[in-house]
Amino acid sequence: MAERKKRRRADADADEDELPFKNHLKPDSFILQILRSLSAASSAAASSSSSAGGGKTLTLADLALSSTCREVADLSLSSVQSSIEALILRVARSILGGDGFAFDVPSRSAANQLYVPELDRIVLKDKNTLRPFANVSSVRKSTITARILQLIHQLCAKSIHVTKRDLFYTDVKLFQDQSQSDSVLDDVSCMLGCTRSSLNVIAAEKGVVVGRLIFSDNGDMIDCTKMGMGGKAIPPNIDRVGDMQSDALFILLVEKDAAYIRLAEDRFYNRFPCIIVTAKGQPDVATRLFLRKMKMELKLPVLALVDSDPYGLKILSVYGCGSKNMSYDSANLTTPDIKWLGIRPSDLDKYKIPEQCRLPMTEQDIKTGKDMLEEDFVKKNPGWVEELSLMVKTKQKAEIQALSTFGFQYLSEVYLPLKLQQQDWL
Amino acid sequence: MAERKKRRRADADADEDELPFKNHLKPDSFILQILRSLSAASSAAASSSSSAGGGKTLTLADLALSSTCREVADLSLSSVQSSIEALILRVARSILGGDGFAFDVPSRSAANQLYVPELDRIVLKDKNTLRPFANVSSVRKSTITARILQLIHQLCAKSIHVTKRDLFYTDVKLFQDQSQSDSVLDDVSCMLGCTRSSLNVIAAEKGVVVGRLIFSDNGDMIDCTKMGMGGKAIPPNIDRVGDMQSDALFILLVEKDAAYIRLAEDRFYNRFPCIIVTAKGQPDVATRLFLRKMKMELKLPVLALVDSDPYGLKILSVYGCGSKNMSYDSANLTTPDIKWLGIRPSDLDKYKIPEQCRLPMTEQDIKTGKDMLEEDFVKKNPGWVEELSLMVKTKQKAEIQALSTFGFQYLSEVYLPLKLQQQDWL
Repeated sequence: MAERKKRRRADADADEDELPFKNHLKPDSFILQILRSLSAASSAAASSSSSAGGGKTLTLADLALSSTCREVADLSLSSVQSSIEALILRVARSILGGDGFAFDVPSRSAANQLYVPELDRIVLKDKNTLRPFANVSSVRKSTITARILQLIHQLCAKSIHVTKRDLFYTDVKLFQDQSQSDSVLDDVSCMLGCTRSSLNVIAAEKGVVVGRLIFSDNGDMIDCTKMGMGGKAIPPNIDRVGDMQSDALFILLVEKDAAYIRLAEDRFYNRFPCIIVTAKGQPDVATRLFLRKMKMELKLPVLALVDSDPYGLKILSVYGCGSKNMSYDSANLTTPDIKWLGIRPSDLDKYKIPEQCRLPMTEQDIKTGKDMLEEDFVKKNPGWVEELSLMVKTKQKAEIQALSTFGFQYLSEVYLPLKLQQQDWL
Repeated sequence: MAERKKRRRADADADEDELPFKNHLKPDSFILQILRSLSAASSAAASSSSSAGGGKTLTLADLALSSTCREVADLSLSSVQSSIEALILRVARSILGGDGFAFDVPSRSAANQLYVPELDRIVLKDKNTLRPFANVSSVRKSTITARILQLIHQLCAKSIHVTKRDLFYTDVKLFQDQSQSDSVLDDVSCMLGCTRSSLNVIAAEKGVVVGRLIFSDNGDMIDCTKMGMGGKAIPPNIDRVGDMQSDALFILLVEKDAAYIRLAEDRFYNRFPCIIVTAKGQPDVATRLFLRKMKMELKLPVLALVDSDPYGLKILSVYGCGSKNMSYDSANLTTPDIKWLGIRPSDLDKYKIPEQCRLPMTEQDIKTGKDMLEEDFVKKNPGWVEELSLMVKTKQKAEIQALSTFGFQYLSEVYLPLKLQQQDWL
């Protein structure tokens, strides 16, 4: 019986016209018209919100939250330098005054985080923690803080970028392990009120981009339609990225490498003008900044293709609303209004994904799913709540690759075009 | 006292002329002359070996090993297709003859591997294992084998590439977990006598390249001097890479992302014409194939910059001699004659890397180091044996980033130029 099923599937592969739902597809011109409307609406929304001050460009100040919440901004290297100098002068005065010294560090703990529905992102509240030098429990951390400030000051003076790993290695004996220097680096961002990019400390690059985008990377013009199948590596330092131009109608944000490769090889962006971007799993800072910059400068809608499991939705939420760890910088790191295109739990039955390609959720998966149902950013979107509830109820998950069961190109040839045609995003 | 040390280091950072060993550096023109000789020698060696049939282009046949060892070759899609058809015909005949069927699968176990010093790489010996269908212990594996053969046949017919993950998802219930379909995929490569690339199954891409290289990726011409700081993502499918041109004098193979970013930002390749490539840690198949292709087509010397620990050397050996897992394809995956530039254990004292930036080796590290001393590919290089013995003796390791202790740009401004000037590679 299993044999018979397999044979049937193989036959379907061989005869492409019989691919499930392929006969639902209308001509590409019809789908392109839908995408043009979507793109125009996204662009109109962006310009109306920027002129009227409404919608997504709301700030903490607009909500009268600026005294109780804090945010960081991009600062120039010279501003960062003078902030550090001013901070150290205060420390010196305190020491000379006989009071020793302490750093006043914004708390980044969960209790100090707030989801602001109007902004649709997580922000940091205003609680601070004192980090005195003359205290056994905080002497190490305050020493690390001073050392990181000194190193950042050096970076600004030289105007170069380094990785978090480089930073760690300047003083291994003091930092002990990289998580300690990394964590204080985030503290320093908060203390100085600037983004981590402003500190010229970058994370290793991970993301790639391909499709209808031209941009400059450190002065070089890059045409992402001419990047073959490999695509262009997303630069680790967003401050040297600029001059974005595009004739795309949307941005397709892809969770995984495998789906990205499929779409790049099929040059999906030529059939439906788009920019395809992936961070290959967990979103890194460089890809998040790059996505936001594209969305903001090109005013394009963003459609997300993620696995149908709690982590797919989690990844989507990090792009959209930010991560708790870096909530102090959510204004710069998040991309508003990302639409959940697929794979959604309801797609599993709708597209008749065979039982054998669905995976049972583990206890941990189910717990994560239930926890996410309690998250504000999920609750505010009734469609998402419905999908997530269905996932938790059926206890089934599926990866994007599950579509390969209908043929390796089912994703690019049927599933995505049909999704776009039916405007089936949430 | 620790405070005093730190201050001294900070002062050194501030005054670049006092960077340790910077005064040993001769003018760049001198170093460039050395690199030109190195490049000419490498090119001459490559052409003499290809005309005289000596040196590195030795084959198994030259060594009279072709009957006892096996190797795979790049095959065209149509050859792969007809090999599969021939194989399945034999199976059908066997079944119709009343004998059932079994696949005759080359063994890829450690016992069937051989390091060939003349080739300086690991190859697979000729032992086979029978995988009968009518046997409880092998029925699953022979079914998986048949299914993978069917899927590869489909891929060839469509001329598309898929990832190993896609392949797994075409039949989750049968394969159960991806390691099973991955492993049989390697078996199928061996059975058909072709490379995994010939099967059109690719791994996720990981590597990046930047510097003095122009090549075509799926028909697009890519100029790697114009790839900003991010560099070009190395394409997952080597068969669509071609037209390599370069005015570089050498290839700099870098283990880690952080060092790569430093060199890309400083545009090291403009000061010393080179191509900089990294797989960001463990070498993936795409980067290994890309490195080999560069070396072979451009006839450039390859210098490697890896961590000073057993894993750095291990990574170097995978690029150079191949991994045991894919020994059947070592001829295509390995790059001959990679020089170990740094960071070498003897560099730690030579460059006065402070104690605090060295890390104590763990028991596991020391064991790995000792095991590597027994490996043939290490033993054949007395310089390597000496360095590795020193590492195991001192029980100290260090990452490339340890050089950051002298200033973030010490790597690109002093260490590498001095290494090149002194021709200090093994």
